Amino acid sequence: MKALRFHGQKDIRLDSIPTPELTPGSVKILPKFCGICGTDLHEYLEGANLIPKPQHPHPITQETYPLTIGHEFSGIVDEVASDVTSLQKGDRVCVQPIIYDGDCRSCVRGLHNCCDKNGFIGLSGWGGGLAEISVVPQSCVKKLPDNVSLEVGALVEPLAVGWHAVDISPYQDSDAALVLGGGPIGLAVVQVLAGRGCQNIIVSEVSSKRREFAKHFGAHHVIDPVAEDIVQRVLQLTGGLGADVAFDAAGAQVALDTAFLALKARGTLVNIAVWDKQAKLVMNELVFRERRYMGVLGDFEAVIEAISAGKIVPAEMITKTIALNEVEAEGFRTLIEDKENHVKILVDVGKGLS
Amino acid sequence: MKALRFHGQKDIRLDSIPTPELTPGSVKILPKFCGICGTDLHEYLEGANLIPKPQHPHPITQETYPLTIGHEFSGIVDEVASDVTSLQKGDRVCVQPIIYDGDCRSCVRGLHNCCDKNGFIGLSGWGGGLAEISVVPQSCVKKLPDNVSLEVGALVEPLAVGWHAVDISPYQDSDAALVLGGGPIGLAVVQVLAGRGCQNIIVSEVSSKRREFAKHFGAHHVIDPVAEDIVQRVLQLTGGLGADVAFDAAGAQVALDTAFLALKARGTLVNIAVWDKQAKLVMNELVFRERRYMGVLGDFEAVIEAISAGKIVPAEMITKTIALNEVEAEGFRTLIEDKENHVKILVDVGKGLS
Repeated sequence: MKALRFHGQKDIRLDSIPTPELTPGSVKILPKFCGICGTDLHEYLEGANLIPKPQHPHPITQETYPLTIGHEFSGIVDEVASDVTSLQKGDRVCVQPIIYDGDCRSCVRGLHNCCDKNGFIGLSGWGGGLAEISVVPQSCVKKLPDNVSLEVGALVEPLAVGWHAVDISPYQDSDAALVLGGGPIGLAVVQVLAGRGCQNIIVSEVSSKRREFAKHFGAHHVIDPVAEDIVQRVLQLTGGLGADVAFDAAGAQVALDTAFLALKARGTLVNIAVWDKQAKLVMNELVFRERRYMGVLGDFEAVIEAISAGKIVPAEMITKTIALNEVEAEGFRTLIEDKENHVKILVDVGKGLS
Repeated sequence: MKALRFHGQKDIRLDSIPTPELTPGSVKILPKFCGICGTDLHEYLEGANLIPKPQHPHPITQETYPLTIGHEFSGIVDEVASDVTSLQKGDRVCVQPIIYDGDCRSCVRGLHNCCDKNGFIGLSGWGGGLAEISVVPQSCVKKLPDNVSLEVGALVEPLAVGWHAVDISPYQDSDAALVLGGGPIGLAVVQVLAGRGCQNIIVSEVSSKRREFAKHFGAHHVIDPVAEDIVQRVLQLTGGLGADVAFDAAGAQVALDTAFLALKARGTLVNIAVWDKQAKLVMNELVFRERRYMGVLGDFEAVIEAISAGKIVPAEMITKTIALNEVEAEGFRTLIEDKENHVKILVDVGKGLS
């Protein structure tokens, strides 16, 4: 079968590889749509970071690159292992791409997403969404309600990150929220906050087009951090108090520094970005205002319900759809050269196989 | 009057300065005992850090060094301004050394300790405890119950930091707590945790003497981080899960890195140390385990009640008492050269004036 595989920095190839076999407890899926994530682009440009290098196989999958990428995907169930009863051929599904060992100190508490050895389908092995066929554990497969399209199914993963970020943050109904970065994850947070009735959503984003997207998806105020002083603007928009909670979807040092200053005392900064380097904290800004900083991952099922119920209407996040053999030229390059006009680029996995 | 003043790095002098006058709302105190804090030592060795430099007056006091030091002190009220009714001559008191403007975004919410311009009596101006006389706002003056000695009154400030750290942290009754650093603040946290019935207090501390102190004050387990692997020991002492909450009273990069690894997923690291540089965070340890990091300051009145009620018995923290003219030779030098045998050195402010 065809699979798009990472072979090293700036080296992805549409390879022909053996078709994966069903194993006990697994499900064979025909991927239909797969989003390109900022993490994929990061791995392409500066990796391997999360993708395991030849000298360091992933502790659970034991794989290293070359491996198949794509971790935001929907598809159709083609076959299930004989011990799988909750799914059947033809089911429309999306995939929660977490890999966990099940018996680490986090897993025994039910916190599989925090597994000590955690990995991601499409980054750490076990195939990925940018392939003709993907075989994944049944626990990763989530059925899509009839009113949720396969295209939107490919948006569930980034939306789940935004949902979970708001959900486990201390956000409360009357809070003012600052979102740093108007990319897919930042816009996911905006949609979740809007869906929960937040009355003061402030988004800081460099691109004017993405600021428009932010407004479209529910932001009350947008800030251009190049032209405006974020801290002063946030103070002005919050009666001089600062934001109660901030979500960092940018993962850049300057955004981090600004976010702390724009938070009120005892406010919380929620990190939802993947960093490829260490973050530096001006500790006095944490200590002398008793601020908090927390990291979050994702939560799938609640967000599927919210989409199905119409609380989140994310289809317009999709700004381009490309074929599997166009990921480098039309996907990554667009995200590098024309990032400001795009939110989520989907790969129509069935196209461009030859 | 005599006052011990900071004149710059490694330069403190017992100066004769004008006696401060009462102003409306203020209280004249004769300091009796004043603790030497790690922050004082830090300022002496590497400052000025918190103490305002000549080019940068403190925004509230408008003072720069030379200024009087000492912010952990008890004393006797000598005189009160005519508009002060809650205190009178002869009252035994301790001082909460916070300086705040009262109308910033934190102060209007009642969070005076998080004031945007915050300062500290004994570090930022308005005198300090290492002087014959100190005039401070009445809001900073807390009466000591009859059964709390003036010596113990000088311990209230560090104990208040420990109390507040536990109080606003997510610590719950059945939690395992890791304390990094067995100095005065770390031992304050141990006493507060023990007073709240914590059944698994683990302290990591380099000095064997301080590990003994930690056990004396309620630690169930002590770790020598030089000889032992903290993360492995904490896992072993917590059924393989890791600590629920950790308190960093060390303020060193290596302690910070270790603390995160020793925390379970969704655990919280509470910073109670004053850092003189930026802290670096390995963000994946925050994000992929959904851990949290928070800064805290102090809370006075609750801890005075706890001492008076016998829930905290801190007198044995005092390992040496010296005279005002011995702060450099017998105070700072002891804390540098013989730190491992000391917790809190008190200055008997009435001694050594000549």
